[in-house]
Amino acid sequence: MISEKMKGLVNNNSVIRQMFEEGKIMAEKYGKENVYDFSLGNPNVPAPEKVRETIAKLLESEDPVIIHGYMNNAGYPEVREKIASSINRRFGTSFDESNIMMTVGAAAGLNCALKAILNPGDEVLTFAPYFVEYKNYVANYDAELRAIEPDTSTFIPDVEALERSITSRTRALIINTPNNPTGVIYSEETIKKIAEVLEKKQKELGTEIFLISDEPYRELVYNGDEVPYVTKYYDHTIVCYSFSKTLSLPGERIGYLVVPTEADPSGELFTAITIANRVIGCVNAPSLFQKVVAECLDEKADIDFYKTNRDILYKGLTEAGFTCIEPQGAFYLFMKSPVPDEKEFVTEAKKEHILIVPGSSFAGPGYVRISYCVARDTIVNSLPGFKRLAERYGLC
Amino acid sequence: MISEKMKGLVNNNSVIRQMFEEGKIMAEKYGKENVYDFSLGNPNVPAPEKVRETIAKLLESEDPVIIHGYMNNAGYPEVREKIASSINRRFGTSFDESNIMMTVGAAAGLNCALKAILNPGDEVLTFAPYFVEYKNYVANYDAELRAIEPDTSTFIPDVEALERSITSRTRALIINTPNNPTGVIYSEETIKKIAEVLEKKQKELGTEIFLISDEPYRELVYNGDEVPYVTKYYDHTIVCYSFSKTLSLPGERIGYLVVPTEADPSGELFTAITIANRVIGCVNAPSLFQKVVAECLDEKADIDFYKTNRDILYKGLTEAGFTCIEPQGAFYLFMKSPVPDEKEFVTEAKKEHILIVPGSSFAGPGYVRISYCVARDTIVNSLPGFKRLAERYGLC
Repeated sequence: MISEKMKGLVNNNSVIRQMFEEGKIMAEKYGKENVYDFSLGNPNVPAPEKVRETIAKLLESEDPVIIHGYMNNAGYPEVREKIASSINRRFGTSFDESNIMMTVGAAAGLNCALKAILNPGDEVLTFAPYFVEYKNYVANYDAELRAIEPDTSTFIPDVEALERSITSRTRALIINTPNNPTGVIYSEETIKKIAEVLEKKQKELGTEIFLISDEPYRELVYNGDEVPYVTKYYDHTIVCYSFSKTLSLPGERIGYLVVPTEADPSGELFTAITIANRVIGCVNAPSLFQKVVAECLDEKADIDFYKTNRDILYKGLTEAGFTCIEPQGAFYLFMKSPVPDEKEFVTEAKKEHILIVPGSSFAGPGYVRISYCVARDTIVNSLPGFKRLAERYGLC
Repeated sequence: MISEKMKGLVNNNSVIRQMFEEGKIMAEKYGKENVYDFSLGNPNVPAPEKVRETIAKLLESEDPVIIHGYMNNAGYPEVREKIASSINRRFGTSFDESNIMMTVGAAAGLNCALKAILNPGDEVLTFAPYFVEYKNYVANYDAELRAIEPDTSTFIPDVEALERSITSRTRALIINTPNNPTGVIYSEETIKKIAEVLEKKQKELGTEIFLISDEPYRELVYNGDEVPYVTKYYDHTIVCYSFSKTLSLPGERIGYLVVPTEADPSGELFTAITIANRVIGCVNAPSLFQKVVAECLDEKADIDFYKTNRDILYKGLTEAGFTCIEPQGAFYLFMKSPVPDEKEFVTEAKKEHILIVPGSSFAGPGYVRISYCVARDTIVNSLPGFKRLAERYGLC
């Protein structure tokens, strides 16, 4: 009935689906407030009020044929120009509308970029642990994702391992900072080292290697850390941005791609990416929300709410005896499982009505991902359960 | 720099782009009101007022975390249930939410369906002339689109030719009614004949052949013709619908897929299509507009405006001596070129500041497509130019 490629995905899907169904059954059985669901990365703070105001204003003042209509597949030129100016102002770059394509979120942006550059048999590298969809996105174009193993003491990219991993078939490296699932931010030093290795390997192998920076969590930063703007360090960079988390609009599917002129002197890559947007079926990013985000580029959802969540959770877990890196950004905490098989720990946690995701789902076995974009009470009320788990495993 | 697959698309794209640029230059040179641009299928009547009212109401009354948030990849269950009920009420079917997946327009819907069912080397059939993107969508999954030649006296599908074209590799037939570019509606008799042939061939070859019905123009019907609901005639049907034209929301990318239980007793196909939605990068259809369309299922943009456009254009062109089928639906008129090479005619038309698309772009050489979703004046004021063209070619 279904295609060969989809069969594996369907089988794999049922595991996650099962978890989701289990959560629903648990909520019915024990009451929603007694189930601590940390499994999803769905923002739980509302969009800034300005989003609502901007929609209302646009509906009052603009021609519906324009705001709900087709435009160039790359997006409205004035929206792209405003985004370019905003990036330039904040990061000292010099983009204009010709460098920006509006996308159906970062997921579609990644697909457009990969479709534009990958041939069958190419390799794409990424640092483990990583967002599991990268594997599926790369497989869409018959290329192969290869993961570089982490230094689990820091989860900072192992740049020497990167150098060893690059072959003549390596077409791209995907990075994600602030990182899902670890919450680590790659420092300027790390980005510079990555850029150096890619430059060196490009020369050595006579190939072009793209650095694809997936940045949905760029604005979710808690300790005042800088998130370096990657195009400044390496020419062959493509940035995939999403407003899903910054503006709490994940369902609206709105983001953009940045293709610097240095990566694309002839404009051929931008044309290819724009055609990919059309051909994969997106056609264009949703029109009204293109205009909305252009008016909300200096807005943020209440990031401090996540910061407080992080602080309470991190303190509670480490005090209970668990080992975890303090997340610097995003809204995930990657915690070491007290037993090598973290799936066993995930099952134990369920007995405390705590739902967490096995690290294996992110190519990070031995760890679990805890999403803290949840109600404050969920965190506070889950801590006694985590404490009991720690006791049971002899961590305290 | 770019992938092999994209190279052909980029080269092909420049032809259309050139036309677009040419139109802009002409508008600057001669004034916008003196250029008659019939090249694009962009609705020019506004969305019904209820769309604006519904957005305003939702923003006032609903939780932003819900209306802009993630939901199941298939869409909000209550939206899907409302759509199922609306189809059931109008067409006598018996769908529920489990048969409906919300999509980023019909283009993404087609891609999800094709990704779910196609293996490399499969064949997909369609009747020429056809929407040129079908070829690209099918190629995304390394399958091949094969066109069945038209009977140009009617542009009604040649069902005998369909029967001859089906092989053991045939995985699907895409139909599009009301049709882009001809404006023809397939009658119940035609649909029944198509279903019979597909049934017969499925048995004969021991294969499953899907009938994929692309229906963005379902509501754009001018003579009171019925557009048969295809799932009633053939089990292995998938319907791809879009609100782009019905509600004049093409930029918002909102539509749905119908997967009847008869086509998918185990639910495996629906699961695969839902995963495809995620994996191609759409993730889900835009959230706010899912809720908007669910409240506007009985609304339509001003279809009568297109009908009057059609009447004026068809009368003007036939009186001038041109040969064309009267469109029954959609907003395109497919006119016979007075010379075999319609590109020559397209060039001649430009001298009258008339922009039309060569039929070759729809696998319909010898014809031109005229989109009449334009201002009334564009049609009225273009007619003297069409008349001069007819005289020049000795048609009158």
